[in-house]
Amino acid sequence: MMSYYEAHRTEFLEGLKAFLAIPSVSTLPEHKPDIRRAAEFVAEELRNAGLAGVELIEGPGNPLVYGEWTGAPGKPTLLLYGHYDVQPPDPLEEWKSPPFEPQIRGEDIFARGASDDKGQTYILIKAVEGFLKTRGNLPVNVKFLIEGEEEVGGGHIERYVAGRPPRLQADAAVICDTEMFAPGLPTICVGLRGIVYAELEVQGAAHDLHSGVYGGAAPNPLQAVAEILCALKDRDGRIQIPGFYDRVQPPSPKEREAWARLPFDEEAYRAREVGAPELVGEPGVPLFERLWARPTLEVHGIRGGFTGEGAKTVIPARAVAKISMRLVPDQRPEEAFEQFRAAVERARPRGVTVQVRRIHGAAPSVVNPDSPFIRAAAQALTEVFGRETVYVRSGGSIPIVGLFDAHLGIPSVMMGFGLPDDNLHAPNEKFHLPNFYRGIEAVARYFEILGQ
Amino acid sequence: MMSYYEAHRTEFLEGLKAFLAIPSVSTLPEHKPDIRRAAEFVAEELRNAGLAGVELIEGPGNPLVYGEWTGAPGKPTLLLYGHYDVQPPDPLEEWKSPPFEPQIRGEDIFARGASDDKGQTYILIKAVEGFLKTRGNLPVNVKFLIEGEEEVGGGHIERYVAGRPPRLQADAAVICDTEMFAPGLPTICVGLRGIVYAELEVQGAAHDLHSGVYGGAAPNPLQAVAEILCALKDRDGRIQIPGFYDRVQPPSPKEREAWARLPFDEEAYRAREVGAPELVGEPGVPLFERLWARPTLEVHGIRGGFTGEGAKTVIPARAVAKISMRLVPDQRPEEAFEQFRAAVERARPRGVTVQVRRIHGAAPSVVNPDSPFIRAAAQALTEVFGRETVYVRSGGSIPIVGLFDAHLGIPSVMMGFGLPDDNLHAPNEKFHLPNFYRGIEAVARYFEILGQ
Repeated sequence: MMSYYEAHRTEFLEGLKAFLAIPSVSTLPEHKPDIRRAAEFVAEELRNAGLAGVELIEGPGNPLVYGEWTGAPGKPTLLLYGHYDVQPPDPLEEWKSPPFEPQIRGEDIFARGASDDKGQTYILIKAVEGFLKTRGNLPVNVKFLIEGEEEVGGGHIERYVAGRPPRLQADAAVICDTEMFAPGLPTICVGLRGIVYAELEVQGAAHDLHSGVYGGAAPNPLQAVAEILCALKDRDGRIQIPGFYDRVQPPSPKEREAWARLPFDEEAYRAREVGAPELVGEPGVPLFERLWARPTLEVHGIRGGFTGEGAKTVIPARAVAKISMRLVPDQRPEEAFEQFRAAVERARPRGVTVQVRRIHGAAPSVVNPDSPFIRAAAQALTEVFGRETVYVRSGGSIPIVGLFDAHLGIPSVMMGFGLPDDNLHAPNEKFHLPNFYRGIEAVARYFEILGQ
Repeated sequence: MMSYYEAHRTEFLEGLKAFLAIPSVSTLPEHKPDIRRAAEFVAEELRNAGLAGVELIEGPGNPLVYGEWTGAPGKPTLLLYGHYDVQPPDPLEEWKSPPFEPQIRGEDIFARGASDDKGQTYILIKAVEGFLKTRGNLPVNVKFLIEGEEEVGGGHIERYVAGRPPRLQADAAVICDTEMFAPGLPTICVGLRGIVYAELEVQGAAHDLHSGVYGGAAPNPLQAVAEILCALKDRDGRIQIPGFYDRVQPPSPKEREAWARLPFDEEAYRAREVGAPELVGEPGVPLFERLWARPTLEVHGIRGGFTGEGAKTVIPARAVAKISMRLVPDQRPEEAFEQFRAAVERARPRGVTVQVRRIHGAAPSVVNPDSPFIRAAAQALTEVFGRETVYVRSGGSIPIVGLFDAHLGIPSVMMGFGLPDDNLHAPNEKFHLPNFYRGIEAVARYFEILGQ
């Protein structure tokens, strides 16, 4: 079976390219047809792999893709999760090759979604395909659930999982949507930050005004956004929202020690990966704790006024700011949003009104590294990559982990094959092809170990 | 001759409509051909009015339009100034009729540039036309200088005027680019704020980053812009730039008294004209002083990150903010810009670099209300409008006033026919047609008084 994977590398790569060429951007309404094409592409791949019951599950939002193979009674059942939607590609001018024309340079394939998450979703499909094409069966039962709203925080999968449909019954979920800590270093992610994504709309005057004629009397909603942002977070990165840190659990001493042992050069990370003059964040808190175990507040964009070339002397009537907070155990998204809303209201400057909208949210989560499903995954990774598997957390949010826990009562095994420099959500996103091929083998080995 | 103006109202209105239909937006490079069309339109109007020496003066930037009539030796010579360029029309969706399809509703004509400054420029042309078509001469000498970069702070007219070309020799300039204090109340503007328009470019990481993976370590240039803005101005509107207020001259007690006597309902201004929940600005400073005699700092737009529909969790690599300061006598644009630049550098947060660029600048100015050119204008306005002329200042900036003073040594007479609710630089800009017709008559009367 491993020889099947080796023999079909070219076809796998061609298939991945076709998947990546679909601009299935879930945050932009004009890509709705591409979303459907991507869903149908996944369904067709599942059928070709030999799965049964393949269908698009329609509902409020983008379709879910389902497919299963349940021919191993008595063996564990795995729910295999991925997502076929991708982030918008902008700023387009910074891409070296067009985001939806996959290009291989060196050992990497460059395209939006290469690593997040089409390449990794494709690993799961191809691992299953190898067994079914060569042996006609799998060592475990599998159920695919691939969604199309991960990047937009859409509610379709949440609603579906919350309904606890019988066909989702499983013993554990496998999620390929995280990264390896370093090239060649097999990694399991055992913790995720949650998120609350919000939008502020600040209204000042009834219409745009001339800054000469009205400056000194008219409120400026852009300045108001700045004042609110400065009230929410101090210059050292400490969030000033009352009560926000109350539920924050520090990492265990054992975790802190393990993180300190990770092979890592903070100066190289600053210079080569981030590329900023200095790293920032709460003073005195170690980097991994800032990234994985401390909440953050970030502004993603501020709309309003004039941002073109040259000069326009306008005081805009309104401004909109997109702001998200990353949450850590045991923060609760609803509570954090209410704390945020109240803090924004308190920070509101004179002369403006502010509306706060919640766009989406997800709870933070941690998984027990002693679960047999985690241990088997660590073993499979160690065998295929030839190095001891490390346990990390991720600063990102994978809402489905919390949903699987809450509604299906199953742990999530996060085996990730991305790399730290994959440029997720950024121009020139890529996926390292050796990780693609080894990832398929590692998932296959995981099935074998679990099926023993 | 006054009967000529009455008899030709329809033609004047049709001519104005044709002028307004040209989208001569100087801040947007794609409108370059429209800029030229507008310049040629003005030149053709000057020729038709009977002026001599009409030509487009080419140079670095948009053409100036020149034309003269100098057949009154021994009489004063007036330099008549206006501009044919307009502000961008965005946000387009807030216009009730398309910005470049002039529409008359009630007694107003709606279009971008209706009041600022095509309608007012057209007043000057038609006033001259009346004399030359009916009498074949004028009571004074006139020289038109109409520019096409007023809204963009372009340097062509500055360079031209600074060269002190002999044909610009004049005794006073007449500028129709201001407004009447209230409907029916003739107004001369005797002071203007200056301006410095700047752009900040804040760079954090080398590329856009995922706010989950990097939040807590990567600098956020949008947050940095917010922190810089909050450092530059406090929540009460007091500018925190060291030295910024040092040269500010308070208005004279006589001016303060006159301003306090102006017919004005501050609550109606707040509710109907501004439409904000509250007026803002320095506490304890009266409104007209805040608008006319105090400097301001306003942010006009902040570019960077994601501002579309939905959610994108990006920490942008860079952000650009457009910021202007209005200056009052005796502040100096170059000095104010250097103070600004230094204050921005001091306010720079950790982890980012900041570049500060100056886009344009203009000195503030005040004119002596006892000048005979001002007194004659006040008399003409009082006669035509039937009410005592008031003296005000404007919070806006008309850079040419300072240039005429500095290079030609002449005062500027600002007879304005706009109204406070004309929506300058905003959607639904309009010009009040009775002011258009009476404005022509008032300028004509001004020529007669000066020629006596």
